Amino acid sequence: MRASTYPLIDADEAAALVLDRIPVLGVERVALADCVGRVLAEDLMAESSLPAFPSSAVDGYALRASDAGKTLRVAGESAAGRPFDGVLPSGAAARILTGGVVPDGADCVVMVEDVQVFGDAVTVPPSLRAGSNYHKVGDDVRAGDRILVAGTQLGAAEIGIAAATGRADLPLGRRPRVALMSTGDELVEVGRTPGRGQIHDSNRWALLAALREAGADVHVLGIAPDAPDALRALVVDALEEADALVTSGGVSVGTHDLVKPLLESLGTVHVGRVKLKPGKPFTFATLPGNRVAFGLPGFPVSSLVTFEVFVRPALRKMQGFSHWQRPTLPVRLAYDAKPTADRTEYQRVTLHREGRDLVAETTGSQSSSRLMSLAGAHALVRVPAGDQGFKAGTVVEALILALP
Amino acid sequence: MRASTYPLIDADEAAALVLDRIPVLGVERVALADCVGRVLAEDLMAESSLPAFPSSAVDGYALRASDAGKTLRVAGESAAGRPFDGVLPSGAAARILTGGVVPDGADCVVMVEDVQVFGDAVTVPPSLRAGSNYHKVGDDVRAGDRILVAGTQLGAAEIGIAAATGRADLPLGRRPRVALMSTGDELVEVGRTPGRGQIHDSNRWALLAALREAGADVHVLGIAPDAPDALRALVVDALEEADALVTSGGVSVGTHDLVKPLLESLGTVHVGRVKLKPGKPFTFATLPGNRVAFGLPGFPVSSLVTFEVFVRPALRKMQGFSHWQRPTLPVRLAYDAKPTADRTEYQRVTLHREGRDLVAETTGSQSSSRLMSLAGAHALVRVPAGDQGFKAGTVVEALILALP
Repeated sequence: MRASTYPLIDADEAAALVLDRIPVLGVERVALADCVGRVLAEDLMAESSLPAFPSSAVDGYALRASDAGKTLRVAGESAAGRPFDGVLPSGAAARILTGGVVPDGADCVVMVEDVQVFGDAVTVPPSLRAGSNYHKVGDDVRAGDRILVAGTQLGAAEIGIAAATGRADLPLGRRPRVALMSTGDELVEVGRTPGRGQIHDSNRWALLAALREAGADVHVLGIAPDAPDALRALVVDALEEADALVTSGGVSVGTHDLVKPLLESLGTVHVGRVKLKPGKPFTFATLPGNRVAFGLPGFPVSSLVTFEVFVRPALRKMQGFSHWQRPTLPVRLAYDAKPTADRTEYQRVTLHREGRDLVAETTGSQSSSRLMSLAGAHALVRVPAGDQGFKAGTVVEALILALP
Repeated sequence: MRASTYPLIDADEAAALVLDRIPVLGVERVALADCVGRVLAEDLMAESSLPAFPSSAVDGYALRASDAGKTLRVAGESAAGRPFDGVLPSGAAARILTGGVVPDGADCVVMVEDVQVFGDAVTVPPSLRAGSNYHKVGDDVRAGDRILVAGTQLGAAEIGIAAATGRADLPLGRRPRVALMSTGDELVEVGRTPGRGQIHDSNRWALLAALREAGADVHVLGIAPDAPDALRALVVDALEEADALVTSGGVSVGTHDLVKPLLESLGTVHVGRVKLKPGKPFTFATLPGNRVAFGLPGFPVSSLVTFEVFVRPALRKMQGFSHWQRPTLPVRLAYDAKPTADRTEYQRVTLHREGRDLVAETTGSQSSSRLMSLAGAHALVRVPAGDQGFKAGTVVEALILALP
């Protein structure tokens, strides 16, 4: 056992160094039903205008505005999908339903509430305005418009607009295939009773959730043995299919930590220690075939914080998202955020509103083993290394995990 | 064709009326791997303490603080999962790895960086503090603690803490089974070329995405025919398996609108028109067997806005979420938000930061057919009915869809 010889790298430098080495994965066509939450890989252009025809905004009567005040013969109907046939003559009206084609010849629509119907005739208001109550061709989208920009995350409205232009599938950034492994002889599976010195493997489940939320397609390798040959065989096999390897545990300096030597033997370790709290033992390596490996620390909070700082932005870059980082908002600290002398610290906070302000309270002990410091947290407050920190009352930019 | 006789209900009243009639669905046990994004149905209590044993926070040596400054015999090792056997005597140290059990007899851990090793002996610093560098039993969680509260959405950290306490599955609120149907003879499937007066069915895809994001298990019925018997048969069959029916289109007042009469014949229509823009024709019914039906308007923006105002909160209540509504934040309007005389309006805005403020810009024409007003929107600004509205510069609470 000896102290690590990996240089301690500044947290921001390490994050930039990782992102610089992350490849953007390819494009795949995905059916609309499976697009939600994913990212558009190419700009989406409108091939035709929306609406493609003058379309009634209401249920009522289509007519000529010049026939205002008259009693008009009802010459037919334009229902949605069943247009009026021919040109509407002067002195006539067509019954029209919402979404129906405004007939040629007509230049306005009157709501059903505003007319009087007498058998096959209808009396329309004395004042009418051409162009009223219907959507003109191209009102919503013009042919050739850029509707959606590459890098956009697709929600309901974005998928709706793609469908409205007739797309049945979309070009999306491919999801990263991630092989996930926990290391450590002390780990036992959930549902079993741990012996003395053993703990339940919680990181695998937390990281599986975090990876899925970040868009990864996860292959769970389970708990790896603390034996070099078995570990190596497992990892080499998993990398056949994976874009990235994520491990937790086994990246500290102990005699039984095997991940760093393995990554050294398979590729190039660029980061072996970071001036980060929690998360000092974070490891990043590039591997042949444009693959990458993230060695996360074994302490639960360390593994999730290094996931937030390094892995999540990387997975978003791989997928082609335009934004890689969490959004930030100004928050007023309700506690003294004390610094660590030599490491950037990500402190976990809950948020609540006071007037217009978001106020941040600490989640309590920030021990790297204490997952309760992250459960229910709304944000991460980045406290720079040094002896300053932030006094209670200071407003800082916080990384928002969830709004209260 | 005649004007609707359903009373126009205030938007907030309608929302309360809907939520009052929404049942909370049952509880189901779900394996940890499938819990992400879902909601805990019961409080989660810790059955045992975490850590369950005194656990080293570092790689180093476990010893007695009273042996400070001495050169100690290394009596063995406590690796993670492989504890030191027996009681550590005075004058001895045990090599210990992060996560290893602090041996009985030892009361502190010294980091490997702070000692000097000579063969089987180690010289420790002259000043040591009992209790340092290890986690005591119960430091993170005490047996009997309430770890997570019913109604919590489960993210990575919450799933991690559940796993750390040994849970292999969790009691979750059941996902609502929703039958989704578009109505309208004017609709054609995406991928096909519409004829004159026809449009692509976009609502089904947008609503499918919105329903999935809100946690529903969706059964897609496709495009229903504008024929009463076929429609009824389809709906009755779908309701055998569904907790809720969501339709789009067919809730206006036209002669071919069939959804309201169908819902009248199957159950009780409580809301048939709402003082809401967009979304006036929104319909809500209760059906036998604790089922509900939401008839959303056919215009794309109307269907998604009524989804946000009525359906999403309902789906969250069904699942047992403690928060049913979108979070709100104060935003400064960069435009004059003009009101509608007789209807509450939900205007779509994008947000950007100016100093500490979130500033809201309109997404342009707020036409109910113009999905581009919702694509890329970050928030909804609720403008009360009347003649006041909000002048540019006013700070209002906005419903946050996504942070910029």
